[in-house]
Amino acid sequence: MPLITSDSQGVFVIAVTPFNENGSLDTNSIDRMVDFYYEKGADGLTILGMMGEAPKLTQAESIEVARQTLKRSGSRPVVVGVSAPGLAAIGELTKAVMDIGAAGVMVAPPSLLRTDDQIIGYYRNVVETVGSDVPVVLQDFPLSTGVQISSKTLGAIIEAHPSIVMVKHEDWPGLQKITDLREAEAKGRRRVSILCGNAGIFLPEEMQRGADGAMTGFPYPEMMVDVCRLSRDGRYEEAQDVFDAYLPLMRYEQQPGLGLAVRKYVLAKRGAIASAAQRRPGMALSAQAVAEVEKLIERQERKLEALT
Amino acid sequence: MPLITSDSQGVFVIAVTPFNENGSLDTNSIDRMVDFYYEKGADGLTILGMMGEAPKLTQAESIEVARQTLKRSGSRPVVVGVSAPGLAAIGELTKAVMDIGAAGVMVAPPSLLRTDDQIIGYYRNVVETVGSDVPVVLQDFPLSTGVQISSKTLGAIIEAHPSIVMVKHEDWPGLQKITDLREAEAKGRRRVSILCGNAGIFLPEEMQRGADGAMTGFPYPEMMVDVCRLSRDGRYEEAQDVFDAYLPLMRYEQQPGLGLAVRKYVLAKRGAIASAAQRRPGMALSAQAVAEVEKLIERQERKLEALT
Amino acid sequence: MPLITSDSQGVFVIAVTPFNENGSLDTNSIDRMVDFYYEKGADGLTILGMMGEAPKLTQAESIEVARQTLKRSGSRPVVVGVSAPGLAAIGELTKAVMDIGAAGVMVAPPSLLRTDDQIIGYYRNVVETVGSDVPVVLQDFPLSTGVQISSKTLGAIIEAHPSIVMVKHEDWPGLQKITDLREAEAKGRRRVSILCGNAGIFLPEEMQRGADGAMTGFPYPEMMVDVCRLSRDGRYEEAQDVFDAYLPLMRYEQQPGLGLAVRKYVLAKRGAIASAAQRRPGMALSAQAVAEVEKLIERQERKLEALT
Amino acid sequence: MPLITSDSQGVFVIAVTPFNENGSLDTNSIDRMVDFYYEKGADGLTILGMMGEAPKLTQAESIEVARQTLKRSGSRPVVVGVSAPGLAAIGELTKAVMDIGAAGVMVAPPSLLRTDDQIIGYYRNVVETVGSDVPVVLQDFPLSTGVQISSKTLGAIIEAHPSIVMVKHEDWPGLQKITDLREAEAKGRRRVSILCGNAGIFLPEEMQRGADGAMTGFPYPEMMVDVCRLSRDGRYEEAQDVFDAYLPLMRYEQQPGLGLAVRKYVLAKRGAIASAAQRRPGMALSAQAVAEVEKLIERQERKLEALT
Repeated sequence: MPLITSDSQGVFVIAVTPFNENGSLDTNSIDRMVDFYYEKGADGLTILGMMGEAPKLTQAESIEVARQTLKRSGSRPVVVGVSAPGLAAIGELTKAVMDIGAAGVMVAPPSLLRTDDQIIGYYRNVVETVGSDVPVVLQDFPLSTGVQISSKTLGAIIEAHPSIVMVKHEDWPGLQKITDLREAEAKGRRRVSILCGNAGIFLPEEMQRGADGAMTGFPYPEMMVDVCRLSRDGRYEEAQDVFDAYLPLMRYEQQPGLGLAVRKYVLAKRGAIASAAQRRPGMALSAQAVAEVEKLIERQERKLEALT
Repeated sequence: MPLITSDSQGVFVIAVTPFNENGSLDTNSIDRMVDFYYEKGADGLTILGMMGEAPKLTQAESIEVARQTLKRSGSRPVVVGVSAPGLAAIGELTKAVMDIGAAGVMVAPPSLLRTDDQIIGYYRNVVETVGSDVPVVLQDFPLSTGVQISSKTLGAIIEAHPSIVMVKHEDWPGLQKITDLREAEAKGRRRVSILCGNAGIFLPEEMQRGADGAMTGFPYPEMMVDVCRLSRDGRYEEAQDVFDAYLPLMRYEQQPGLGLAVRKYVLAKRGAIASAAQRRPGMALSAQAVAEVEKLIERQERKLEALT
Repeated sequence: MPLITSDSQGVFVIAVTPFNENGSLDTNSIDRMVDFYYEKGADGLTILGMMGEAPKLTQAESIEVARQTLKRSGSRPVVVGVSAPGLAAIGELTKAVMDIGAAGVMVAPPSLLRTDDQIIGYYRNVVETVGSDVPVVLQDFPLSTGVQISSKTLGAIIEAHPSIVMVKHEDWPGLQKITDLREAEAKGRRRVSILCGNAGIFLPEEMQRGADGAMTGFPYPEMMVDVCRLSRDGRYEEAQDVFDAYLPLMRYEQQPGLGLAVRKYVLAKRGAIASAAQRRPGMALSAQAVAEVEKLIERQERKLEALT
Repeated sequence: MPLITSDSQGVFVIAVTPFNENGSLDTNSIDRMVDFYYEKGADGLTILGMMGEAPKLTQAESIEVARQTLKRSGSRPVVVGVSAPGLAAIGELTKAVMDIGAAGVMVAPPSLLRTDDQIIGYYRNVVETVGSDVPVVLQDFPLSTGVQISSKTLGAIIEAHPSIVMVKHEDWPGLQKITDLREAEAKGRRRVSILCGNAGIFLPEEMQRGADGAMTGFPYPEMMVDVCRLSRDGRYEEAQDVFDAYLPLMRYEQQPGLGLAVRKYVLAKRGAIASAAQRRPGMALSAQAVAEVEKLIERQERKLEALT
């Protein structure tokens, strides 16, 4: 089974968790969804993240989702979100998913952390808990966690723990942090892979700043795939053209809370999952919101046609 | 002097405060900037808001900026931000600016408020402090204040205080709140004017949901003017076309903290102010960020040309 | 097996979780500790709360601790803390512990809740998740959760859900809330049991305001037992005399984070558990802190002697 | 006029601001209150702090209060709280009060600061704004500000700015921080004065850890005076005896928000101010709360008698 490394790149789609209308796990849709993501060009997946409704799953369900996704993914790397209020739960889930072939685990800091040393100490505890042989993705998402990690603090963590091989970058504003990381590497610090989240809303700039790819769940993974590929080839104008065509919907999908309803609506519409249902509690799309999304999709299709 | 009312509509530009490179107030640029905003079609201005670097001004400077802006604006309405940790300061500045012709004052809730009743009580105190004859804009901006005002709570405040004539709407997600307000009015609640902030990032949808216009500081006010005008005329597709052309830059300008540097950079570039300088403390644009902005502007101009 | 009801009263000690020096669960100490609490007069226990290091336990360990505590407690009621970021985990743990004889479960609101309706909606979801036949303790602890529940909102929740039979009261300041609850009951609202936390620091006033007892983990449960008993007998001066003798240590033990180290130090010193060790991460007592605690205990003993 | 220095010690009482029942400034009470504090043994005062209702004063009123307090204090040092959301207001008020004889200014960090470097940068800006000749008190009060300053960060600030001569210490838990500061000084770092707040609730331990005195507003300043004096003389048991006699009321007065009502009630009762009125918005004492306070005072007097 593949492990992520500090050289990992490309598009790791943040997968949703499919549910039936009654709130039960829709295991039938998992294979279909996994296939959909890879058909659209994903290099790997990330499951059980915030947008994967992970906190709504029991531990048994979490492992079931991981097992099925890993099996269907075959040799493709799958990262598993294991963030939890306590280290014991992180260790327990990490062991379970690494045993069945996960490529690494992703950990966001708990929201009570404040000082630099508290953040540094937290990741030391995480690495000790999961074991230094397990590749870790550090999720840097202050808008959601409330924890601000400066470039300096991030650097101290990276230097201390070689097993933290990847940063899920979604600080906002955060372009400078990518530049800071790459400049430190140019001066000798070990490399980390940087995959960008934040709903993809800064992907062209992030790629030019030195990111290695995307890790977000926009329901048109082909956008991320194309922007990353074109950027890596230095075809920045074309990358931006593709990005611009999707941006109106991307912006709409980035609304906190509501965004997941948009994402699942589009995935269901595209046939990737059977139902847009979220497990309770979740926000639903009003009729007006559905109309807005439909109009944005229609315009998006027109623009994409014009591009080709 | 004009006062804002619950029927106010159009574009109220959130004005920046121009500084010289040494951090002193650039009073020469104020007239030029005011003229620029009106030339681009603004219906009014809002000064001393968060993006106007208001907390960096002394009280004397605040009043000086207000006086000059009001004078130059002539018969156009100018709203003044008076948010402060204490009611006394709110009352003091409100009196000063209403005396010299402000059209109303804008108040965001202090970040300690939590329960619905605390929020309702706060606005009761505000209205009692400034006097019920002063038109008040309630700024609903949870991302910045941390205070979440539900539609129900907002309704209770509106019903209790006729002098709260306008909502600066920048909840995120917030489209449903516009719908909720308008539906309550359809059932008999008094009307409030809704002008939208949030950097303009949802303006087309907001106008279709029933907003009366925009109150934000995107440095191309003509975008807001056109989107609002076309939306009012029911020409939604054209409104969206204009919006889409500006969206990549708008998205870039929406970065918290950094956004003001982008905004002032563009305004200086467009000749509206002499310098992009911010008074300390402020974020500066790196060379890379400048290059990114320039490229976005260049692409934007190309798209606008294609539209006409 | 007994269930808690809205008439429950007395002292429910918040139990610590005993660990060995190496961080493993010290199951040997559990029986000893349970016996200690009951010997000192406890009417029941509450386990897996914040001060029970619950987030540091795996799910399997949590259930093991619950099973052993329940067995040793025999016919005494044991409440189990099941707070978690997601409803699924709450439901999963609730089912597990109710099946083996828990007297009820305790749920604190997740820290993201802000508006009154969000809080009300949350407890509706909790009751639906655990089932309306499971007695629930609502933990109202804003200092820790950041969620402020007004008396009005608390009342709406109590009215909606008869299965919420108890409030763990630790708002600060919070005396008025007890008065509000009891006044509403005098006017016809159904009764809830109110047991007070907050390290016991307001216990005499809380009992006089109408509380039914204490639910906190001060390592001298006999203090809570005596204060509650004397208060119920109307012997308020004597209750306050006992309280005052313990107050200097109680105040010291109330320090967030450090308090658990003090608590475990005293419990180990008193022979209730074998070791004061906390599972990582945890704060340790410095030599100076140990000296401070020892001096406070010494003075406390002298004062208690003088009382008798 | 005296300035505070890094050798300042003793008791600086946090003064309330007296208001008339109608909410206007009660300037008559200011002299009386100032005299009261000094008669009870205060070495200096601190005005316009959070508990001085500073945010409820207009700028003109703030300066008036400062002027009168300074005049009445004669050669005694008076520190003025100047915390504000923006540097300009801090600079403006600092200049005004230093010109009329303040001994220094006190600045708490604004609640948005998160990373160590943001905090360090903030105090650099403060010192540049007020001028390095103005003695500054750094108020370290995370419970209120939400900003956590580690010992390391505090050390970096102290090393960078000799004009920050004093720390108002009210971290919770915070005893270790005093030890950390003193240990760093033993190893060569320059000395800072440490005066303790937190309602005095840890004063005996703080003095033994190396604090120089108290800076809080407990309405029996003689408690602080005695505890500090006895502690400096090494008579720790007697210091603790005095402290213990006042502790039940001190604990009651420490309730956030409500505490100020208790404080003013006692000060009015003792004749230090004419009215316990707070300017709006403020919490009032219910009849039950008044009865509780009265009982605590009565018991306190009995205990003090027994001590002598």
